[in-house]
Amino acid sequence: MSGRLFLLPAPLAAYSPEAWSPETLALHLPAKAIGLYASLDSFIVESERSALRLLSRFKDAQSLRSLKLRVLNEHSGESELPSLLEDLEQGMDCGFLSEAGMPCIADPGAALVAYAREKGVKIIPISGPSSILLGLVASGLDAQRFAFLGYLPQNGEERRAYIARMATAVLKDGMTRVCIETPYRNKALLKDLIALLPDSLWLCVASDLCGAEERVLSAPAAQWRRSGLPAIGKVPAIFLFGKRAGMRPPDSR
Amino acid sequence: MSGRLFLLPAPLAAYSPEAWSPETLALHLPAKAIGLYASLDSFIVESERSALRLLSRFKDAQSLRSLKLRVLNEHSGESELPSLLEDLEQGMDCGFLSEAGMPCIADPGAALVAYAREKGVKIIPISGPSSILLGLVASGLDAQRFAFLGYLPQNGEERRAYIARMATAVLKDGMTRVCIETPYRNKALLKDLIALLPDSLWLCVASDLCGAEERVLSAPAAQWRRSGLPAIGKVPAIFLFGKRAGMRPPDSR
Repeated sequence: MSGRLFLLPAPLAAYSPEAWSPETLALHLPAKAIGLYASLDSFIVESERSALRLLSRFKDAQSLRSLKLRVLNEHSGESELPSLLEDLEQGMDCGFLSEAGMPCIADPGAALVAYAREKGVKIIPISGPSSILLGLVASGLDAQRFAFLGYLPQNGEERRAYIARMATAVLKDGMTRVCIETPYRNKALLKDLIALLPDSLWLCVASDLCGAEERVLSAPAAQWRRSGLPAIGKVPAIFLFGKRAGMRPPDSR
Repeated sequence: MSGRLFLLPAPLAAYSPEAWSPETLALHLPAKAIGLYASLDSFIVESERSALRLLSRFKDAQSLRSLKLRVLNEHSGESELPSLLEDLEQGMDCGFLSEAGMPCIADPGAALVAYAREKGVKIIPISGPSSILLGLVASGLDAQRFAFLGYLPQNGEERRAYIARMATAVLKDGMTRVCIETPYRNKALLKDLIALLPDSLWLCVASDLCGAEERVLSAPAAQWRRSGLPAIGKVPAIFLFGKRAGMRPPDSR
């Protein structure tokens, strides 16, 4: 198996002709990623539509027509993994692209990487934007240690019980918690967080990161309760809660 | 307070004239970060030496001479924060740069951001390489949820007890654990991890990420025990352990 599997970042900002102009994309993506978009001929992608939109910014019509795209998404099964590696087996380099941000995190790419590792494929991760880290550094929350929780439970009651449990855990262990939500549930999640977090914790909501409407709101829970629910809309967002960062981080392992 | 505080990424690869040539740096850093290195005149930095080395790649001698640098590191106290914001108060934009990777994570930058937020400073996070995420995506470990633990306890006995506790926790909650170590303790940490992790968990060590000697080793703990300790050296590295990623992630909140 001599092809290499490149784990490529995708833009965070949602598609628009301006947000996805080659110049704007290059502002947020390193040259290595852009060079690989342009040069690779084989890709495993989470969304064919997003991948083609992105690659069309950097490839001519001829290369786009001869492109090999294979799909790996939440509907894929374990049994499909071997066929995804066919081009790699032929010695071709291959890129993996998720819908947004760094691949493999909270998507099925990690299973592909595990399988590819067992088959001896060389894996090369390429740096790029991550809403988890951009939200974290801009939040003012403690970032000595943090936990990414992925998607929270969809059921309202379960979600609220989970948030309450996590809030208690933060008070004890000091680890900032980071979670995501599908955009149409942003409002429900934010409402629950504002209602449930204890006064002493901070809540941060970062939306449209790297986009024209980028907004990072971060304040103590008590202040959120006073100012009420902001207009958040159905945009990609990330939610964080934890202790305000200090010069001497709390240690309670 | 009208200046903006830009949270800038720094290269991950350790300094060498080749690794830090402007062309190599641009491979791993987005154009936005490089544009800000070149255009900002005021910086808060974790290490004056690293910051000057980096900025000298993108600034002429004249701009370097008139540069305003203020230091924030692990020896800084809470009382120094107000003076760090002086240029921002004068309406100047300011960049924050840590020694490597994204700022604020496991460094005192987060306290600066918290303080700046309370003073109404506009905070703008700029994307860049992160060893946490590059290691995670390349590992093949479950990445639906993960926890960054920062530096582990320095004392050998405490460290081993902590690793054992974390290994038990991973088996239960399925969250991949990520930790760092100062390079001269890499070998001791790796030895402990290889000795202590249960057979079913995977261990991943990623070193010199984005550098010429980039290496990501990831395999079941049992396999590490059979193959023995690899030559790791005193290079920047990140360590991860957790369950092998599958298409259907384990859920045990």
